[in-house]
Amino acid sequence: MLDFTLEDLSAEDVERLRTVYRPLTEAVRDLIDATIRSEVDADAVAEAKTQIDAATATLRSRQLDGPFGVRFTAHGDRMPWGNAVIGLRNPIAPPLSVQRDETGGVFADFELGAPYEGPPGHVHGGVAAMLLDHILGEVASPATSPRLTGTITVRYLRPTPLGRLHAEAGIVRTEGVKTFAAGIIADAQGPTVEAEGVFIRPKWARDEQLTDPPV
Amino acid sequence: MLDFTLEDLSAEDVERLRTVYRPLTEAVRDLIDATIRSEVDADAVAEAKTQIDAATATLRSRQLDGPFGVRFTAHGDRMPWGNAVIGLRNPIAPPLSVQRDETGGVFADFELGAPYEGPPGHVHGGVAAMLLDHILGEVASPATSPRLTGTITVRYLRPTPLGRLHAEAGIVRTEGVKTFAAGIIADAQGPTVEAEGVFIRPKWARDEQLTDPPV
Repeated sequence: MLDFTLEDLSAEDVERLRTVYRPLTEAVRDLIDATIRSEVDADAVAEAKTQIDAATATLRSRQLDGPFGVRFTAHGDRMPWGNAVIGLRNPIAPPLSVQRDETGGVFADFELGAPYEGPPGHVHGGVAAMLLDHILGEVASPATSPRLTGTITVRYLRPTPLGRLHAEAGIVRTEGVKTFAAGIIADAQGPTVEAEGVFIRPKWARDEQLTDPPV
Repeated sequence: MLDFTLEDLSAEDVERLRTVYRPLTEAVRDLIDATIRSEVDADAVAEAKTQIDAATATLRSRQLDGPFGVRFTAHGDRMPWGNAVIGLRNPIAPPLSVQRDETGGVFADFELGAPYEGPPGHVHGGVAAMLLDHILGEVASPATSPRLTGTITVRYLRPTPLGRLHAEAGIVRTEGVKTFAAGIIADAQGPTVEAEGVFIRPKWARDEQLTDPPV
């Protein structure tokens, strides 16, 4: 059983927290890029490290014992803020902003820079797999009934260049607790990677007693 | 064609750069974790952000135009330091330290914390796919002949808890330009995710003129 957290927060509280933490996360994303691309000398690196350690100490002066978890409020606000792909508070997330279209499909437009590199100038194949796993899972999961990945197959058509990219996914069919979804990542010239997956409604989410949407 | 970079560096130069940059990257990894888990108030967040922005400005005072790329030296040193999974200079990489065993297989022991979360307390399924893509690609790629992922299938046996984990992969068989590899991620109780993939030697790497190992 996964331990979702119910937060006693109003919609205004959630919006205020968003306003506090989003600029911090974006500053850390910028720092990650600078860390990879910097060519400053050892003294400047040491100076930057001192500033970073100070920021870390400030942030750690009061902190959660464990990871962020997935939280939701009684008002239906979802707070998957620690999530590795979409997390508002997770600097390693690009983050993907996954939108739902009229037909029930999902899509995201995003940019991947230096932190997501594998082959020179190109997106790490594993990063492409990670993003596809997420958006296929998202399209396969109605709000009231989360699904987890059973199996996913990712096919690489050509290397994906770093830069502006698009991803989309749709449901192929549903059979009982299994939902089949498919999707792609594309650059301006068309698809670079395609994926299909089977997503499964976990046993605990089939329990009638779970009436609140946990994700 | 992927643009690998030949660096004019001695083994001592590479070791010196490693000594300069590894502590910086580790400091940023620590900051990423603190950013997700912090519960300090808005004033403290603003103070941390100021310190982070200062560090970023210091690092950006001299920087590469683009991503880090994959570099190697005439002495055979590999410097995939920007890599999203193993990069010494990439704070989003856990990083995986992939070891080769006597039989030609590869393995890695590592810890995943808050930045890699998907379901509460558990590794994002996409992160598991990313790591498996990398280690399967690694075992399928002899030093003299890099291979890129053709297709990978990832099967989730149960949710992978955050914490200490192990991954391993081996070659199943090779047919011409295709190498079939398989692997797993495991916690102390055994495998949680398994994967199999087909890795392809890219056309440009089949060229006899390429005698230096580019990755």
